[in-house]
Amino acid sequence: MEAKKKDVVIAGSGLVGSLLSIFLAKKGYKVKVFERRPDLRSTNSYQGRSINLALSDRGWRALKKIGIDQDIKKIAIPMYARMIHDVKGNLVAQPYGKNDQAIYSVSRLGINVALLELADKMPNVELLFDERCESIDFEKKEANFVNAITDRRTKENASLIFSADGAFSAGRLSKQLSSDRFEYQQFYINCAYKELAIPAGENGSFLMEKNALHIWPRGAFMMIALPNPDGSFTCTLFFPASGDFSFEELDTREKTKIFFEKYFNDALPLMPDYLDQFERNPVSSLVTVKCFPWIYKDSFSLIGDAAHAIVPFFGQGMNCGFEDCVVLDELIEEYQEKWDVILPEFEKLRKPDADAIADLAINNFNEMSDKTGDPKFLLQKKIEAKFSDKYPDKWIPAYSMVTFSPHIRYSEALANGKRQQGIMDEIMNTENIENIWDSEQIEEMILERI
Amino acid sequence: MEAKKKDVVIAGSGLVGSLLSIFLAKKGYKVKVFERRPDLRSTNSYQGRSINLALSDRGWRALKKIGIDQDIKKIAIPMYARMIHDVKGNLVAQPYGKNDQAIYSVSRLGINVALLELADKMPNVELLFDERCESIDFEKKEANFVNAITDRRTKENASLIFSADGAFSAGRLSKQLSSDRFEYQQFYINCAYKELAIPAGENGSFLMEKNALHIWPRGAFMMIALPNPDGSFTCTLFFPASGDFSFEELDTREKTKIFFEKYFNDALPLMPDYLDQFERNPVSSLVTVKCFPWIYKDSFSLIGDAAHAIVPFFGQGMNCGFEDCVVLDELIEEYQEKWDVILPEFEKLRKPDADAIADLAINNFNEMSDKTGDPKFLLQKKIEAKFSDKYPDKWIPAYSMVTFSPHIRYSEALANGKRQQGIMDEIMNTENIENIWDSEQIEEMILERI
Repeated sequence: MEAKKKDVVIAGSGLVGSLLSIFLAKKGYKVKVFERRPDLRSTNSYQGRSINLALSDRGWRALKKIGIDQDIKKIAIPMYARMIHDVKGNLVAQPYGKNDQAIYSVSRLGINVALLELADKMPNVELLFDERCESIDFEKKEANFVNAITDRRTKENASLIFSADGAFSAGRLSKQLSSDRFEYQQFYINCAYKELAIPAGENGSFLMEKNALHIWPRGAFMMIALPNPDGSFTCTLFFPASGDFSFEELDTREKTKIFFEKYFNDALPLMPDYLDQFERNPVSSLVTVKCFPWIYKDSFSLIGDAAHAIVPFFGQGMNCGFEDCVVLDELIEEYQEKWDVILPEFEKLRKPDADAIADLAINNFNEMSDKTGDPKFLLQKKIEAKFSDKYPDKWIPAYSMVTFSPHIRYSEALANGKRQQGIMDEIMNTENIENIWDSEQIEEMILERI
Repeated sequence: MEAKKKDVVIAGSGLVGSLLSIFLAKKGYKVKVFERRPDLRSTNSYQGRSINLALSDRGWRALKKIGIDQDIKKIAIPMYARMIHDVKGNLVAQPYGKNDQAIYSVSRLGINVALLELADKMPNVELLFDERCESIDFEKKEANFVNAITDRRTKENASLIFSADGAFSAGRLSKQLSSDRFEYQQFYINCAYKELAIPAGENGSFLMEKNALHIWPRGAFMMIALPNPDGSFTCTLFFPASGDFSFEELDTREKTKIFFEKYFNDALPLMPDYLDQFERNPVSSLVTVKCFPWIYKDSFSLIGDAAHAIVPFFGQGMNCGFEDCVVLDELIEEYQEKWDVILPEFEKLRKPDADAIADLAINNFNEMSDKTGDPKFLLQKKIEAKFSDKYPDKWIPAYSMVTFSPHIRYSEALANGKRQQGIMDEIMNTENIENIWDSEQIEEMILERI
C-alpha cells in the first residue's frame, strides 16, 4: 500500500464519532463527519438515550490524549462508592476501589458538546448535520447520505470510511446485506429501563450523597441514580420488559404506587411527581450487538457501538468506544498510514475485548442488582480488598481491572476475573470464614492458589 | 377476531412457499405467490443451491397431506444406508434404520416443479414471477415488490402475509429494521462446500451403489454423494473455507490433484474431469439463522428458511420447512380462521423445534465426517439398534427420531438424544465392551438406566 494522507468520512458525530474525528485530524487527515441528528449545540432537547454516564479510566485516557480531560473534569462528579439503599432505607457505602479511585458521572450531552466544539475548531474537520447514512458501498469506497430536511442524497467518496453510527448502524447493515460470511447477532436481555428524575434541593443542593452511585438492589431488578452538576439525580429503573412482574404489568398508577412504596420507599419523598414521570417516560430496551468482521480491506471499519453495542451495567459503553479510538490512534502511530495493516490489527485487537466487555456487562447486572445486597458477597469484597492492598501486584479485583486499569485488556480482565473468582469460591467455602476472614491462614490460602 | 375468508400473500415460491400456497388454497384462501426468480418451469438453468436433497418422513407427511406423495415417489431414490468409503476405497454400508426405512434422494428442481404445477392448477392460487419482495409494512399489512424485468413497484395488501423467501428473507429484514426487541443471529460454520458431478454410466447405469448416501468421512472434512434418477451422482465436498487446510489453499490444479488423490482416490475414476469441475464450481457458505419473533400479530409470519435457516448435515432443511406447513395446517383446522390464535401458537410450537434441529444439524457434521469412520461409534450404533429392535417402545436411536419419527418433535428428539447419549457413554465405558456388547448384562445395564 502506498502511504499518503487521505480523506476520511465518519458516519456519526456521537461520542465516538466526534472523538475519532479529533484523533484523525490531529494526525493530519481531512475529516468529514456526517450526523443524522441536528447539531446538539443548537437544539434544546437531547434526543439520545441516557442523560448521564459513568466515565472511568479508559475514557479519561482518551480525553487526556486529545487534551480535554481537565475541561471535562470540571463538569464531572466523582463517585467513590456504591451507596446501597435497602428496602428499609438503610444506607451502606461500598467503595469502588482504593481511596482516590472513582468513576465520574458526566452528562452525555456535556461531553458530546465539548468534543464537537473541539472538532469544530480544527481546520481539517468538517461537521455536517441532518445527514443520515443510508448505506455504504465498500468496493466503491462510497458512503450514501440523505438529508433529513431537504431529502437530498449525497454520495461521499473517501479513502477511509468509519461507521460510528451506533447500535443500529447503517454501515453494519450494509455489511450484513452485501458480504458473505458476515457473523451477526443482536439480542436483548429481558430487563428494560425507564428514567426518572430526582430534582435538586434548595440552591442546587444534593438531596442524597453527591459523590456516590446510588443503588437500590432488589434481586431480579434494581434502581440506580447518578448525580448531575445542577444538584439533581437521574434515576434509572431496570425492570423486566414483560412477564408477570414487569413494566407491562405496571399499567395503572395504583399498581405503580404499590410497587414503588414497597421497593423504593426512601426515594419517593425526593421525587413527589414520580407517578407522572413514570406515566410520561418511555420504556427502553437493552440490546447487545456482536458482529464480525468489522472492517473491509484497508478502507472501512465499524467503531464504537456500531461494532459492539453492550448493556450499561459495567458503565463501559462510552469508555470502550473511547478506547477503540485510542487503540486505533496507537496503531496509526505504529504503522503510519499503512491502513492495510492498521485496520486488520485494530479488528484483531479489539474484537476479543469487545466480546469480553459485552459478557462482563451482562454478568454485572447480577452483581449490581443482587449481590450488592448479599453479606457473603460483601465479605468476599472485603477479603479481596485487603489482599489486594497488601499484594497489589498479585491481585487486582475484577471490577478494578475493568474500571481503573486501562493497561489491562478487557479480555484479560475477564479471564483473570474468572480465575480469581475460582479462588474466592474456595476461600468463601472455608469453614467459619465469617470469623477468620482477616487471618493469616486465609492470606496463605490465597497466596498458595494464585 | 372476526373469522372470515381472507386474502393471503406469500413471498417466495420455493419449496416452502409453493407448498404453503397449496395448503392455504385447500382451506379456501385466495393466495398470491410472488417469486423473485423467473418461473422454474420455463428456465433452463436452476439458480438455487443444492441439486438434490434428502426427503424423509416429515417431508413425506406433508406431501401425503396434499396428495402428491405418490407422484414424488416416482422421481425419488430410496437410500437405505450410508455407504462409507475409507481412504483405501473399502466400502461399508451402515443402515439408516430398520429394513424398510430409507431417506429419499430427490431433485430440488423436480419437487419444486411438481409443487408449482399443483399450485398452478388451483383456481385460487396466482403465481407471479420476477417479483422480488423488498420490504413489508406490518402495520399496513402491505408487502412491497419490485419486478426484476420492468422495475415496476407493486404494493400488495393482504390480511395475511407469509415470508417464505429463504435464508436472506426480505420480510425478516423488515422485522429487524422496524421492530424493537427483535432477536437475530446469523452465523457461519467454518466449513463451506463445492458440488461436483459423477456422470451416469452407460445407458443411465449407476457407477456406485444406487440406493445409498455415499460418504467419504475424513475427520474435519468429508465428501458425500447422492444419486440422481438419470444415473448420475451429485457429490458435495464439505471443507473449511479458510485456514491452513482449506478451499483457499487449494489454489492450483496440482494442489487440488494431490488432495483428491490422497483423500478421495476411489472416486476419481468416476469423474475424470474433476479438476475442471473444481475450478469452475463456486464455493458456497453454510449459514445458520435464528430469530424471534417470527410473527406480527394476526397478519404476518416468517416460515421455512426465512425463520430458521440451518446447515444441511441432518438432511432436514426441506423437511423442517414442510413440517412448518403441516403444523400450520393443523392449527388452521383446530382454530378455524382465528389467526390471532393460530400465528402465536405456530410460533410457540415451532420456534423450539427449529432451534433444536439447527443444533442437531450442526452436531451431525461431526457424526457424518468423523464418527462414521470410528469403530467405537459403529459398535455403539450396533448396540442401540439391537436394543431398539427388542424394545422399540423404550429406545429410538436419535437419528431415527429425527428422520423416521415425525410424531416426535425435533425438540424432544434433541432432549431424548442427549439423555440416550449419556446412557451410551456409560455403556461404552464398560470394560471389555467389544466382546460383551451382545450380552444380557449390557441389555440389563441399559434397561436400568432408562
